Amino acid sequence: MRIAVTGADGFVGRAVVRELAARGIADVLLTDRAFATPPPFEALPGELADPAVFARVIGVDAVLHLAALPGAAAEADPAASRAVNLDLPLWLIEGMAGRRLILASSIAVFGGRLAAPVDDATVPTPTSVYGTHKRMTELAFADAARRGAVKGMALRLPGIVARPRGAGGFGSAFLSDLFHAAREDEAYVVPVAPEATSWLLSARAVVRMLVDALLSGTTEGDAITLPARHVRIGALVEALGRIGDTGGFTYAEDTGLRAVFGSYPPLATPRADALGFRADVDLDALIEAAFDD
Amino acid sequence: MRIAVTGADGFVGRAVVRELAARGIADVLLTDRAFATPPPFEALPGELADPAVFARVIGVDAVLHLAALPGAAAEADPAASRAVNLDLPLWLIEGMAGRRLILASSIAVFGGRLAAPVDDATVPTPTSVYGTHKRMTELAFADAARRGAVKGMALRLPGIVARPRGAGGFGSAFLSDLFHAAREDEAYVVPVAPEATSWLLSARAVVRMLVDALLSGTTEGDAITLPARHVRIGALVEALGRIGDTGGFTYAEDTGLRAVFGSYPPLATPRADALGFRADVDLDALIEAAFDD
Repeated sequence: MRIAVTGADGFVGRAVVRELAARGIADVLLTDRAFATPPPFEALPGELADPAVFARVIGVDAVLHLAALPGAAAEADPAASRAVNLDLPLWLIEGMAGRRLILASSIAVFGGRLAAPVDDATVPTPTSVYGTHKRMTELAFADAARRGAVKGMALRLPGIVARPRGAGGFGSAFLSDLFHAAREDEAYVVPVAPEATSWLLSARAVVRMLVDALLSGTTEGDAITLPARHVRIGALVEALGRIGDTGGFTYAEDTGLRAVFGSYPPLATPRADALGFRADVDLDALIEAAFDD
Repeated sequence: MRIAVTGADGFVGRAVVRELAARGIADVLLTDRAFATPPPFEALPGELADPAVFARVIGVDAVLHLAALPGAAAEADPAASRAVNLDLPLWLIEGMAGRRLILASSIAVFGGRLAAPVDDATVPTPTSVYGTHKRMTELAFADAARRGAVKGMALRLPGIVARPRGAGGFGSAFLSDLFHAAREDEAYVVPVAPEATSWLLSARAVVRMLVDALLSGTTEGDAITLPARHVRIGALVEALGRIGDTGGFTYAEDTGLRAVFGSYPPLATPRADALGFRADVDLDALIEAAFDD
């Protein structure tokens, strides 16, 4: 089976590449705008919207589509978000007819009106450009799967840690930055209160699920919300004290960040659980696996 | 204020044209693939996807977008549905930046999993190509309205009666055909049981709402479900006996049609009601207004 991965030089993409290599998968095509270092598989640098690149990507048996314009960048440029976060996956859904497609969706589809607890019956009501385009893509995928036109799944990713410092376009960057600050014994102003709550997964945990989904034969039309740790930020900072000095951490809440990234209710994911998807088992495991590079 | 109407030579479009003329509106641009008879306003025949046609349509102050590929036709050709039912309204949402856009959406967004009763809190879970593209468009419109990028509303139309006989591409055609059969004293095999229920509006009632929405200054991001009569088919056939001989009507249920077009629960539309939108007051009024041409 030949596999293609888009956004393969991104943070999650590079972790996927490590996971594929660790599993002994060989026939892989990677694409991204550019590659910082030569990857262990065939690399195709370029724009996915370029017909020549696109044609090669859809010439495989299974595509894992990770390329995206992140949330803050999407909000700043809705037309760019439409091109990247909507048109490209719609073309992939059509282009991968009869074959396997795993789409990275996002918990951003739920928007800011979350009632506790969220489970598989919670219907998304997005309140951002990014969440809107991801939800539109989920609907298109579900319809194509219903018609038997495509196989695979759309998986909703929660916050993934720890992204590299200074990752552009992510409003949620602070959730990763506090991991780095702790490891480097730096002072850090946490922009939400200790009571703030988020859904977090380590890169190692999420790529296990993404690759499992890619290699499985399962098709799920309705998007699957991935399991995550429901983390209280104060508890996370305390746990981070085990890998570094967090004595310089202080709190100064940004109500906007708190509303969007720090107000998550408990999460139940029975559909993902039934598919064998597992979050990091506890906070210590999350922290240990967050630096899997 | 200059107005443009797309799909202006369709069944609803022609009724809109009569309503605009009756209200003394003068500065109107109509577009459709072709016009069967010369309309009372400036007519622009052609494909809306033609950049020259599109540029003229978005050169106005307010657009009423009616052009669509109907449900059965959309299911038969998902790519054509994407072009007509998704890409065109997305371009209109972007093209009408800062101005007014009224989108005709559809109760097809609710899909086939309706729990009684449906109200403004019912979240759509489409189960057709047509309903999926309409829902995707609703989400895009809601997001653009949230950002202040566009004004107007997306209005969900129920079954509109009585469409001309032989209207192509509509699975719901029988709901109109039984009006014609009654008026012409013909035998008719009703393809759902007398207990089947639908949501119906006369063309006269719906165009009043569409034109009110077009001329108002109100913006509603989330799509508005229009009020409709919740009609039991047996009661409708009985009432149709007042305009013709329905003695030749028999019933032979098609379970597929029953599931999609004959299983509607009671409907509450408080948001539309608050905007002054009113369904036909009773069955007799619905029947009388159904032949408003």
